[in-house]
Amino acid sequence: MARGCSQVMLRPRSSEEVSRILRHCHERNLAVNPQGGNTGLVGGSVPVFDEIILSTALMNQVTSFDSVSGILVCQAGCVLEKLSQYVQERDFVMPLDLGAKGSCHIGGNVATNAGGLRFLRYGSLRGTVLGLEVVLADGTILDCLTSLRKDNTGYDLKQLFIGSEGTLGVITAVSILCPPRPKAVNVAFLGCPGFAEVLQTFSTCKGMLGEILSAFEFMDAGCMQLVQQHLHLHNPVQESPFYLLVETSGSSAEHDTEKLSCFLEQVLGSGLVTDGTVAADESKAQALWALRERITEALSRDGYVYKYDLSLPVEQLYDLVADLRARLSSLARHVVGYGHLGDGNLHLNVTAETFSAALLDALEPYVYAWTAGRRGSVSAEHGLGFRKRDTLGHSKPPAAVQLMWQVKALLDPRGILNPYKTLPARA
Amino acid sequence: MARGCSQVMLRPRSSEEVSRILRHCHERNLAVNPQGGNTGLVGGSVPVFDEIILSTALMNQVTSFDSVSGILVCQAGCVLEKLSQYVQERDFVMPLDLGAKGSCHIGGNVATNAGGLRFLRYGSLRGTVLGLEVVLADGTILDCLTSLRKDNTGYDLKQLFIGSEGTLGVITAVSILCPPRPKAVNVAFLGCPGFAEVLQTFSTCKGMLGEILSAFEFMDAGCMQLVQQHLHLHNPVQESPFYLLVETSGSSAEHDTEKLSCFLEQVLGSGLVTDGTVAADESKAQALWALRERITEALSRDGYVYKYDLSLPVEQLYDLVADLRARLSSLARHVVGYGHLGDGNLHLNVTAETFSAALLDALEPYVYAWTAGRRGSVSAEHGLGFRKRDTLGHSKPPAAVQLMWQVKALLDPRGILNPYKTLPARA
Repeated sequence: MARGCSQVMLRPRSSEEVSRILRHCHERNLAVNPQGGNTGLVGGSVPVFDEIILSTALMNQVTSFDSVSGILVCQAGCVLEKLSQYVQERDFVMPLDLGAKGSCHIGGNVATNAGGLRFLRYGSLRGTVLGLEVVLADGTILDCLTSLRKDNTGYDLKQLFIGSEGTLGVITAVSILCPPRPKAVNVAFLGCPGFAEVLQTFSTCKGMLGEILSAFEFMDAGCMQLVQQHLHLHNPVQESPFYLLVETSGSSAEHDTEKLSCFLEQVLGSGLVTDGTVAADESKAQALWALRERITEALSRDGYVYKYDLSLPVEQLYDLVADLRARLSSLARHVVGYGHLGDGNLHLNVTAETFSAALLDALEPYVYAWTAGRRGSVSAEHGLGFRKRDTLGHSKPPAAVQLMWQVKALLDPRGILNPYKTLPARA
Repeated sequence: MARGCSQVMLRPRSSEEVSRILRHCHERNLAVNPQGGNTGLVGGSVPVFDEIILSTALMNQVTSFDSVSGILVCQAGCVLEKLSQYVQERDFVMPLDLGAKGSCHIGGNVATNAGGLRFLRYGSLRGTVLGLEVVLADGTILDCLTSLRKDNTGYDLKQLFIGSEGTLGVITAVSILCPPRPKAVNVAFLGCPGFAEVLQTFSTCKGMLGEILSAFEFMDAGCMQLVQQHLHLHNPVQESPFYLLVETSGSSAEHDTEKLSCFLEQVLGSGLVTDGTVAADESKAQALWALRERITEALSRDGYVYKYDLSLPVEQLYDLVADLRARLSSLARHVVGYGHLGDGNLHLNVTAETFSAALLDALEPYVYAWTAGRRGSVSAEHGLGFRKRDTLGHSKPPAAVQLMWQVKALLDPRGILNPYKTLPARA
């Protein structure tokens, strides 16, 4: 856990109040830590020293929803799950979904460019976020809160704030495009004999399920063992080196079922998949999703956990896990890999009885250098925050890091916004 | 036509050559006009005075294509249509398509954040462009050419260059995510009795066609009259106040046809649509698309054309056309509206026998103010370039325009990159 020692938390209700707070802090050189639902995994939303916490918790109103276009405009502090319910009642869905939905704020999602479970289908927030209202370091309210799918007038300033973890401005309102709610959802859980077969199954799946494919998640045998051992979950298929969760979302139950059946016939018949099961109802679908979603929980019960969130070329995604198993041998208890295969996103986790400096030294910078060697990303979706900021150089060249510092200096010349986050400590 | 009087055109073959050119120009304060296929509609790709033209024409190599992920990496000067053919042979499609595809360059598409005909389905380049290599004003090569769907390490600098029309850096290479090639494409052409019915048909269509809907274009009776009169095209349905072109792209011909039939039954039965036809083969599909795609050509044969490319709330999209018809009465020959209804993007065109200052005064700033009053965009997809740069203030507030100037000063302190473009002339 990351922990600071802030003595002040402010909970403004409006952009004007945020503006007054920042103007005050800017004039007096007071550091500010913007905070949404405080669910981030890299310590980006907690103070490092005595920063003033600026919480969006009371900025939780929906401003408007257009039922023709599906465009939602709301304050930054709206909880993702509540927005999900709100738009689902109107036959739309939020374009993002993640485990922390019960407490994370949409403003925080945008500030961290959250990925999650619907990324494969609905894409990045950089495409679905249509507008933002942001308060700049000096208190200026920047109103880019338009609700237009297309707008090529000047530079798209809102992009500066998406994924910048509150270091360039405080997001106070969001305009976001919601896709129509799918009429039918199917979930299949499959066992695969090897990673080569996992990749081939993915290619087959994209071809045969096409536009209805909404998730393609994988987990290795180690993950299955952990959820069985620590959470007593039941493996619904025969034991395999790899498991896949395939979800479809579409507008016709009949068509989607038929597509899924053809796909399953193909991959089972060709031996790419050795066993599989399909959820016939909502509760079975949830049980299948639990196998994938509760891996984090199982890991935390296994001991001390070293966590990595990497983007890698999909063909090499699992090589690192195998490589590390050999490298670490008896130093680690478990080395497991799972994640959003469809997005090239590996969650690599290493457990040990307790924290060990020797194990950490064996892992870092090795994992980062390995990733850099494949032009991967050392933080696919979690961001850098406080904990990972010094890894930036593994994924971005010096010219890029320098330009980032210049952008920071332009937007926040006094360095009051979320200091010690995102950008590396200067040498 | 926009026309400059440049005496020098340079055609580098590599990023290193671009870097040396810019370093030279930066040292000597020489203005540079980056140029792709020179197909832009707002004079962004032509010199205003004696700028040195930096053409990407010889940087036309594909660097790599990954047939599992569909990620294409190529130089900026690749022609869109050639890339389209290249990836289609490998069972993928480019995520964008536009009328100028035969000559426009992918670098120019990215620099102008091109929209076009596949936007509704595959979204913005801000989501599909995964990486860029850019040469900065001083010659620094900024390598952000990763091929990752997810990368949350630091600020996403490439976004600065998407849509900035060559004013912040010169894009030299692009990494872009290509979706799988659809196995089935259907095109329907429909007649609608009124704009309210157009909107209701759109809602019905989104619900019933869902994930296979790939285009929803509209044109009014005036457009149909022009393509009939000037191009002798045939109206395939009965005369109507509005016409719609609906395209589906999916992975199953049988399923897609069934969905389209159900949709047509519904909208014809309820009177939302009064007549319709479906393309049974490729050549009929092309004939239907020609009705929509050749409107520009028909307009240019009708006289002098005043062109506007606006984003508006979809419910109010057509109000401006009706309003202008009343306002202009006999000053104009024709006032017509068409465009990407699914994206809220209206192409508004006014024709007259010859250019008339009185007509221009009646149009501007009226059209821009009308759009601003609805929080629309005065340039949905064409950009601002040279011709529309002074309209920026209609769509962006002063604080945003000021920040754009600061970003320009940061990235191009000597103002050598595409001067007189995008940002307004200073008072």
